[in-house]
Amino acid sequence: MKTVDLALLGFGNVGKAFARLLIEKKPELEDDFGFSPRITAIATQSHGVCVDPGGVEESALLSMLDKDMPINLSRLDKSGFRGDTYDFIEKVPAQILFETTPVNPRSGLPALDYLRAAAKRGLNLITANKGPVVYGFRELTELTGQHGKLFRFESAVLDGAPIFSLFRGPLAGAKLLGFYGILNSCTNLLLDRMRDGESLEQAIVYGASIGITETDPSNDVDGWDAAIKVAVLSNVLMGQNLTPMDVQPTGIRGITPEMVRSADAQGKRWKLICKGGWQNDGYHVSVKPEMVGSDSPLYSVDGTSSYVSFELDVLPGMGILESDPSPKTTAFGLLADLIDIVKSGVA
Amino acid sequence: MKTVDLALLGFGNVGKAFARLLIEKKPELEDDFGFSPRITAIATQSHGVCVDPGGVEESALLSMLDKDMPINLSRLDKSGFRGDTYDFIEKVPAQILFETTPVNPRSGLPALDYLRAAAKRGLNLITANKGPVVYGFRELTELTGQHGKLFRFESAVLDGAPIFSLFRGPLAGAKLLGFYGILNSCTNLLLDRMRDGESLEQAIVYGASIGITETDPSNDVDGWDAAIKVAVLSNVLMGQNLTPMDVQPTGIRGITPEMVRSADAQGKRWKLICKGGWQNDGYHVSVKPEMVGSDSPLYSVDGTSSYVSFELDVLPGMGILESDPSPKTTAFGLLADLIDIVKSGVA
Repeated sequence: MKTVDLALLGFGNVGKAFARLLIEKKPELEDDFGFSPRITAIATQSHGVCVDPGGVEESALLSMLDKDMPINLSRLDKSGFRGDTYDFIEKVPAQILFETTPVNPRSGLPALDYLRAAAKRGLNLITANKGPVVYGFRELTELTGQHGKLFRFESAVLDGAPIFSLFRGPLAGAKLLGFYGILNSCTNLLLDRMRDGESLEQAIVYGASIGITETDPSNDVDGWDAAIKVAVLSNVLMGQNLTPMDVQPTGIRGITPEMVRSADAQGKRWKLICKGGWQNDGYHVSVKPEMVGSDSPLYSVDGTSSYVSFELDVLPGMGILESDPSPKTTAFGLLADLIDIVKSGVA
Repeated sequence: MKTVDLALLGFGNVGKAFARLLIEKKPELEDDFGFSPRITAIATQSHGVCVDPGGVEESALLSMLDKDMPINLSRLDKSGFRGDTYDFIEKVPAQILFETTPVNPRSGLPALDYLRAAAKRGLNLITANKGPVVYGFRELTELTGQHGKLFRFESAVLDGAPIFSLFRGPLAGAKLLGFYGILNSCTNLLLDRMRDGESLEQAIVYGASIGITETDPSNDVDGWDAAIKVAVLSNVLMGQNLTPMDVQPTGIRGITPEMVRSADAQGKRWKLICKGGWQNDGYHVSVKPEMVGSDSPLYSVDGTSSYVSFELDVLPGMGILESDPSPKTTAFGLLADLIDIVKSGVA
């Protein structure tokens, strides 16, 4: 049985959900895909770093995760390693680096620099972080390619629902002409709450109470998260080279309770709609609130669900709905990337 | 450049759309996938057979297709071949057989026998026909496997939208627990027409006028087409071994104009809903009309569109909507299967 060694850079909700899923799916990965994954290193933002070339002790890791205890990595560390993040990247005994540090919508840093360093070292890269994808897709693809390795990021858009793998595999023979959808689940939830009678401010407070909105909600509310995703889809799937700033998003701050009630009276709903695609005069993108009626597939996309519809040369509309994702869903995107890399024979 | 030789058994709307798409996509297949497809044989139900080991003349084929002329295969035939269908299967100079003959919901015959013969000869098989998939999935997979070849059938459910390839590739690491959706586009269109005030009989006449309903509409109207698709999904994706009869479908004949109006008054719509999946007491399937409200993703699935939602262990709902497919969409499913077989290195 082939062992594949994994290093986790970032160990928040997504990193933890991935560690849990990996333990849960281990028998299947061995039986169905012929490899045994082993976490050999974890680096956290504020709970230190652990490295164990023999694989961190699964039962101890699982017991910390299951009891939701503060992560005490020193219990798992066998190495005495005490370097910084770049040392970690340089020295971890792994074939694949999983990067799940926070998104920086303005530059993708420092995650982009971490991934550059790991690519130059010859590691395969998997990230759930949109930042380095939007700012570094071509560069990281090329850097990993120079070592015969791969850069994967299925979880960057629509969590773990297959998007990028769909266009690499099943839809490889189709031509993508454009896309539209609801890509930011936070604003979708806030607009739902406003339909239930809350003001935007009340909805944001509720969102924060269940961990959906950030301390500074601007990234979601002003459309920047959606804009990054539009730029990612445009760059990866449609050959563009956009930054989130190029998208010039309009967020949902202009949507008043009156507008929501008035839409409701017409049997319509406000949604933050993302678009990208070719038109007669070139490539266009947008992120802005629009009203949709019940005959639109966007109407029923509620709560933290997301939706994207692709216009293909062989099919006017192929939509993908992701209903009620959890951190486990994002973790699955990382797992799918891992399986893809192992199947490709580069790890 | 590697040449891949293809034999087409069946040359109706789907076969013709595939021949057209193949010619359209040829440059891309050569540039992006490194192979050149060549149709070396075509067998039709009533316009004879042509075989040309050097590849049938593309320009002549295209001109017949584009002008919608009656297909005159003798113009293309260089072989003098005059055998029956089994001779054709035995002798065609091809690596892949594309089967697009009519569906037989009761047994899958004779298509299943044709595919058995081709598999035993060592050909790769691609079909758009649900019949041999529901009655022969395991057998044909095994028979082709004995020769190191593949059996593919992406177009059997939801036309060319990726379903089976999705579970072979991007979703291979997820566990499927159940599915539901609208799998029969004909009844979906008929129910739409009834909302517009037509009786079922009037809607069927309209469906026939645009080529959607058959002379005998029972296959669609009584739920058999949907039942075959439920059995196919159950057998291929969930390890079941069902026939369409096991599904015991209820069609839409019981839906009266009054019921449609009453649903409309409640803001609901009747849909023919397909389900399959694990429940506490075992595996269950159903096909029956149900009312859905505007908060269901099924509500906005109109006309000849289809939808399927998968419940996965890592995601409560992953829906795929196929909007307004055409024969080109079904042809794309065949093309995707071709690309998959060539990528797998078995043709």
